[in-house]
Amino acid sequence: MEKPLILVTNDDGITAPGIRALVEVAQELGEVVIVAPDAPQSGMGHAITISGPIRLHPNERVFEGMESYECSGTPVDCVKLAKHVVLKDRAPAICLSGINHGSNASINIIYSGTLSAAMEASLEGIPSIGFSLLDYSHDADFESCKPYVKQLIEWVLENGLDEGSLLNVNIPALPYEQIKGMRVCRQADARWIEEFTEAEDPRGQKYYWLTGRFSNDDNANDTDIWALENDYIAVVPSMHDLTNYRALKTLKQVETI
Amino acid sequence: MEKPLILVTNDDGITAPGIRALVEVAQELGEVVIVAPDAPQSGMGHAITISGPIRLHPNERVFEGMESYECSGTPVDCVKLAKHVVLKDRAPAICLSGINHGSNASINIIYSGTLSAAMEASLEGIPSIGFSLLDYSHDADFESCKPYVKQLIEWVLENGLDEGSLLNVNIPALPYEQIKGMRVCRQADARWIEEFTEAEDPRGQKYYWLTGRFSNDDNANDTDIWALENDYIAVVPSMHDLTNYRALKTLKQVETI
Repeated sequence: MEKPLILVTNDDGITAPGIRALVEVAQELGEVVIVAPDAPQSGMGHAITISGPIRLHPNERVFEGMESYECSGTPVDCVKLAKHVVLKDRAPAICLSGINHGSNASINIIYSGTLSAAMEASLEGIPSIGFSLLDYSHDADFESCKPYVKQLIEWVLENGLDEGSLLNVNIPALPYEQIKGMRVCRQADARWIEEFTEAEDPRGQKYYWLTGRFSNDDNANDTDIWALENDYIAVVPSMHDLTNYRALKTLKQVETI
Repeated sequence: MEKPLILVTNDDGITAPGIRALVEVAQELGEVVIVAPDAPQSGMGHAITISGPIRLHPNERVFEGMESYECSGTPVDCVKLAKHVVLKDRAPAICLSGINHGSNASINIIYSGTLSAAMEASLEGIPSIGFSLLDYSHDADFESCKPYVKQLIEWVLENGLDEGSLLNVNIPALPYEQIKGMRVCRQADARWIEEFTEAEDPRGQKYYWLTGRFSNDDNANDTDIWALENDYIAVVPSMHDLTNYRALKTLKQVETI
């Protein structure tokens, strides 16, 4: 059987340890092509570069002997360039994004470059998974989760995903034997409580720097946050149709104002 | 009765004609505060600035005599700064974003800074509306749609929206008398067919520039694209919960692999 073509990207940049771990797993399962940002692109959400040029350079130093490219654009740009410039007629069987350094559970999905890249792939008809480990540090331990990451990729390669669907996978930062398994769940209704640090730059000009804390009041046991707090890997099926179908009826009266 | 507090932002930047038209309508309905990007931020999606400082300056030249600020960040940054730095304890009754120069119908919502700003406001518990006119030109005619924009804002001020909900409103570029009314609809399942222009910069280095064409194969008559093609204003209720609830059941078997 021909080896499946696997596209790998991320938002922490091509040199991040997280993408290296993902590539190592992917290599065991298929032919890997990497198109990743040439610099960190965290928090870029679904941004695309439309008002300026994008650079794309082969870089086989980072992943020796593999087909890999670094891109000056956002994670979503990487997927678009991968599809239309790098791969062209070679259709990837799956797109993997990550492994992100830090959580993309709950509402984080909408800010996340990692997950937006996966969503862009799903728009292109490519089944996709965004992986995140709940450890923001550069030297996080990505080894423990590898068997789970591999199982999930194998499952999707075999079974596919609903059209337009992607998986948002968050992994607790625990040794392998302490991870209890995988839970399929919904996105918790949690949010960020923002705070802005206000300070002056060296020239005496005021600036703001975004910070904040994550706050979850959604205590049901079918959410990604619950799964993570209970030492499970959280697997959330996500999608790009943002229509609030429940609200369609209520709003109907707008048609007559 | 006290006048409602109305927060206005956009993604085309504080000097764009579209935000001026929206402010003119909003002024008739309440007390307006403007926090908008100091430069165009189209295609920024839900990007936030986390790895660098953000500037925020009062600018009362563009909107004389009004409380207005220009911000160096993304549209989502503008909403966060508006809420936490500018307004603080003053709770806006509504957030309006736009009027965007160009369509944000269908899948465009996920790339759009205009709609991401509205979505961020909805996350903060503020009812919000993103407006877009189907005319990309700088000197588009924003007068024709003003009566509809006003009616819709009034309706939301009076009736509110479901929690976490926002409206994605797209307006055909037609004279007032040719607009047939408003249709409440779902997001059409359409997409972009990307193309990249490949060229060399003045130094002989290759670059890519994203372009493409919008493609819709979703021909049902309950979509935003249908409404717009039939001279209606399309009103789509949207939300930030990206969970694909239908896929939860199919995926359940992942828990046992």
